[in-house]
Amino acid sequence: MKRIGVLTSGGDASGMNPALRAVVRSAIVHGLEVIGIERGYEGLLNGWLKPLSLSSVGGIINRGGTILRTARSERFKTDEGLQTAAQTLHDNGIEGLVVIGGDGSFRGAVRLEEVSGVAVVGIPATIDNDIGGTEYTLGFDTALQVAMDAIDKIRDTADSFERIFVIEVMGRSRGFIAAAVGLAGGAEAILVPEIPFDPVQVCERLKQGMARGKRSAIIVTAEGAARAQEVATFVEMYLREEVRATVLGYTQRGGSPTATDRIMGARFGALAVDLLLQGQRGMMTAAHGDEVLAVPLRASWEQPRVLDESLLKLNEVLAS
Amino acid sequence: MKRIGVLTSGGDASGMNPALRAVVRSAIVHGLEVIGIERGYEGLLNGWLKPLSLSSVGGIINRGGTILRTARSERFKTDEGLQTAAQTLHDNGIEGLVVIGGDGSFRGAVRLEEVSGVAVVGIPATIDNDIGGTEYTLGFDTALQVAMDAIDKIRDTADSFERIFVIEVMGRSRGFIAAAVGLAGGAEAILVPEIPFDPVQVCERLKQGMARGKRSAIIVTAEGAARAQEVATFVEMYLREEVRATVLGYTQRGGSPTATDRIMGARFGALAVDLLLQGQRGMMTAAHGDEVLAVPLRASWEQPRVLDESLLKLNEVLAS
Amino acid sequence: MKRIGVLTSGGDASGMNPALRAVVRSAIVHGLEVIGIERGYEGLLNGWLKPLSLSSVGGIINRGGTILRTARSERFKTDEGLQTAAQTLHDNGIEGLVVIGGDGSFRGAVRLEEVSGVAVVGIPATIDNDIGGTEYTLGFDTALQVAMDAIDKIRDTADSFERIFVIEVMGRSRGFIAAAVGLAGGAEAILVPEIPFDPVQVCERLKQGMARGKRSAIIVTAEGAARAQEVATFVEMYLREEVRATVLGYTQRGGSPTATDRIMGARFGALAVDLLLQGQRGMMTAAHGDEVLAVPLRASWEQPRVLDESLLKLNEVLAS
Amino acid sequence: MKRIGVLTSGGDASGMNPALRAVVRSAIVHGLEVIGIERGYEGLLNGWLKPLSLSSVGGIINRGGTILRTARSERFKTDEGLQTAAQTLHDNGIEGLVVIGGDGSFRGAVRLEEVSGVAVVGIPATIDNDIGGTEYTLGFDTALQVAMDAIDKIRDTADSFERIFVIEVMGRSRGFIAAAVGLAGGAEAILVPEIPFDPVQVCERLKQGMARGKRSAIIVTAEGAARAQEVATFVEMYLREEVRATVLGYTQRGGSPTATDRIMGARFGALAVDLLLQGQRGMMTAAHGDEVLAVPLRASWEQPRVLDESLLKLNEVLAS
Repeated sequence: MKRIGVLTSGGDASGMNPALRAVVRSAIVHGLEVIGIERGYEGLLNGWLKPLSLSSVGGIINRGGTILRTARSERFKTDEGLQTAAQTLHDNGIEGLVVIGGDGSFRGAVRLEEVSGVAVVGIPATIDNDIGGTEYTLGFDTALQVAMDAIDKIRDTADSFERIFVIEVMGRSRGFIAAAVGLAGGAEAILVPEIPFDPVQVCERLKQGMARGKRSAIIVTAEGAARAQEVATFVEMYLREEVRATVLGYTQRGGSPTATDRIMGARFGALAVDLLLQGQRGMMTAAHGDEVLAVPLRASWEQPRVLDESLLKLNEVLAS
Repeated sequence: MKRIGVLTSGGDASGMNPALRAVVRSAIVHGLEVIGIERGYEGLLNGWLKPLSLSSVGGIINRGGTILRTARSERFKTDEGLQTAAQTLHDNGIEGLVVIGGDGSFRGAVRLEEVSGVAVVGIPATIDNDIGGTEYTLGFDTALQVAMDAIDKIRDTADSFERIFVIEVMGRSRGFIAAAVGLAGGAEAILVPEIPFDPVQVCERLKQGMARGKRSAIIVTAEGAARAQEVATFVEMYLREEVRATVLGYTQRGGSPTATDRIMGARFGALAVDLLLQGQRGMMTAAHGDEVLAVPLRASWEQPRVLDESLLKLNEVLAS
Repeated sequence: MKRIGVLTSGGDASGMNPALRAVVRSAIVHGLEVIGIERGYEGLLNGWLKPLSLSSVGGIINRGGTILRTARSERFKTDEGLQTAAQTLHDNGIEGLVVIGGDGSFRGAVRLEEVSGVAVVGIPATIDNDIGGTEYTLGFDTALQVAMDAIDKIRDTADSFERIFVIEVMGRSRGFIAAAVGLAGGAEAILVPEIPFDPVQVCERLKQGMARGKRSAIIVTAEGAARAQEVATFVEMYLREEVRATVLGYTQRGGSPTATDRIMGARFGALAVDLLLQGQRGMMTAAHGDEVLAVPLRASWEQPRVLDESLLKLNEVLAS
Repeated sequence: MKRIGVLTSGGDASGMNPALRAVVRSAIVHGLEVIGIERGYEGLLNGWLKPLSLSSVGGIINRGGTILRTARSERFKTDEGLQTAAQTLHDNGIEGLVVIGGDGSFRGAVRLEEVSGVAVVGIPATIDNDIGGTEYTLGFDTALQVAMDAIDKIRDTADSFERIFVIEVMGRSRGFIAAAVGLAGGAEAILVPEIPFDPVQVCERLKQGMARGKRSAIIVTAEGAARAQEVATFVEMYLREEVRATVLGYTQRGGSPTATDRIMGARFGALAVDLLLQGQRGMMTAAHGDEVLAVPLRASWEQPRVLDESLLKLNEVLAS
């Protein structure tokens, strides 16, 4: 193997840049050439390629987002798109490809490997931490930290006004962010899509807390569970208290990567290059405990991650 | 003068706690007793009073919000309310009152002084920086910093996706926050209530920037100028580009006070006590350049602050 | 079991407060009374006890340090001290004790359990992450984040001046902090006590980087490996370049706990109470991968943690 | 005027990049060409020039340090150096020069203007805020914020251990940083070079605070007043309490510029270009209250700034 490609795909996540830095530097130190493909699979379809050197990735370890940019590509999902992408790889002598992205990007990666014959390795990166086969996806820790800092700030106002706030966090159809950030933020209630919730019961629990002397309350809701404004309206009508809704939004995606996202990015990136050099195919990097290892890309959708519901039970106790 | 009262009123703002600390400690060092009144004017109506000592305000200098809590009070605006509040002051031997809040609270303060005869001093505190007679109100710098940090994070995603984002910031009917945070965040456009804007022109300017190679754009809109979602919809339809809207919301109110808010809180707090000791009436603390000084409370609404439109022109140049 | 005690001991670490909150609330929800012991084992010797309620631990989840305070106690290490401490437990009807601290505190905990008969559970908390039997100790992630943020800031000056900086981080006799923060901060070299280093080789590597166009360099040294000033002096004389030394110091201990430290604190705290309720003795909470579980307190010193040297090799590659 | 140059000189300060961005964009919008000179005056001596475009300064508004780098130059202070620098300006058709730096750099700027005839405008930038003629120098607010955050973190440990900490901050021979950060950080004592201090009196005041129930103390010392370790040793011996010393060091220089440093950088930068276009010579930008205006460069050393000693008196009251 002489030359590899690397791209970032899907929603951006903090940690993509540290992973990219590790892929590039590790590959070059091992004697490979590295081609950066801009805007994900769209770049393969349009030939947006550029060689990357050691210094191309200097000064990016502490930057959110991705310097290769990202995009979503409908055309890549078609047979014609796949053929074109494969052709780009062949035309440019790319013998291995690192795809930094989420499970949607990994489905594409598997098909591209089949069609092109070029070995593909995935690095899981999405703030949602909802990819099967790995305990960690890049961007999750930074997103948690950003969302938690926001909750800390809102708590100042909630306490000062003795009010109830409903805060909506990201996570697509899953509750990983909501559960973690709710627990870390000391939320009085956490709503996730995985567990049906009874809004009356939520209100009754808030009431009990207030009876015990709590002067404010925070409800964290996953975007996949309920919209902040809907929850706020219900609670306001039921409790006859003023309730405020806030949607954290895109700030959760960005920000300088945390130490965890930088270290995991470094480890995933270097491992991805090792896997290509070993001649492995169809694999992704994964975290299990303190270890990083390789699992099949298919695990990302075939072994869906299960939300640890004990975290939510724990939160109910701690919100007392 | 032997005993003074202090309360925080209106929207909470970072810097209220440092000001409160300064009022309490400065008063006690000058031999006064200090009574804290909880939940603003509501506390005067309900007798929610407690004596404050040097240590009551220990460990609060770095905390957002207000430990005295705040509230809005409709009843206080009635004659009966004012009489009751005045009675509470007299019954508790309170000979001077420090009101930390915005111009609404200051109107109440002036009437309370008239009705009760008790000297009142105001300390301007609102994130909106829209109080006449002073160049600075507590909470503004912290709100700027929080909003700017959020814009920095959103810029990561905007750059990665090469997309346009519309970000709505607070400020009530004024554009002080939007102008400052837009300039500090390097926004491509800033919409404020004080200046009519032409959405077509805004779009055309974005187009020019993109023609010059800009890969993303941030539009900052003051809540009093236009809602983020409305702007986003217009720009999306006009430019036929994907546009995202985000509302920063209540995070802007909170967070540990910045150095500026702590220092100004300290200076305002100590000056407020000095003014009471000097026997002044109907005054508020104010900032002019490096100085803090006293101006009449009435200035807060009689001399409305003018938005420095040159900042917006400057931003147009710098967004090139 | 009706009543338990809880104390924090040894060096303070961010995450102690979240763990304390979890111990108290979990215990009370399970019907136990909780006694807080101030200033670690010294508090047991001097009877510095106070009952803790649900609201005693309100508003502390986001605060660094420990509201129970901590101290080191020489007297507790004597037989007389142990007897006195045991007596305090008995006199106050304390049937179980949670010790939040490091391995030194855990040695004391084991002896206290033997002497007093009172069940003791440990929660590992030290910024150094050097406790056997667990992959994680509370405070480590916050310390990493704080040290990494400092390195990011120093990098600004290093780049602007094209200079070499040597940054000394904590970690006592181990290199866990240095290895992780060096990797996360993109350090050009990392010195740890576990691996002998050749200063000439370090300098030669910096030279190569500069030949490739690097305009600055950061060397991270663990306090147990070499002092920053010594390293700086050597590098300055060898390379004939200006070198600056800086010692990060006590900022690394403090700061609002990160999401990881809050979540692990919550999980450790609740588990500690469960272990006491189950009648377990001599155990500590531990992290392995995504799980929290119980291991013997003795593991904390009998199974010393091994530094993952592959992180340092990885860093050499990535610093290219 | 067709072409101007810009350089950053002296110690780096956060806010230099925003100022540079404003100089470049404002100049180009006004039809000028801009040449960036790297490494301050050294760059003029060595011909390290490069043209700057609108996009050269894209993405730097939120970055500390200076992308033009900085350096100190002994040779520039000689007659030969000045002649060479002047020659570089003429050879490259540079008709105006913006110097972003401190008063040392401004002395050089005045001489260079005399020798070369090229108009020079200064933008005050130093974390020390010790330049005459202006109330503000770029970098001061960011340095305050960074130092204050560090003090907040150290306070966590100080409170937990009930200990005294001595924290040394920058400021060269002046106490502006120490006074402001001490007041903002709630320090129990502040030592500055401008006011002789009696260490015995400092200790006695700490003692009184402890007698009133303070459980920790922070002493902030300016590097120009006393070294942290010396103060710590004295206090330890006098009070017979454990005292810790910490030197904040180079972190104070860096970090993403605060809103204030970005806004002032923008205003100073645009004004500097205006002054060149107006044909002014020997001027610097300055802040007075809410205004930015031009004052002679000579004011920077002829009208030395006076430390507002009332801040220190205020702090003594508030530290009660």
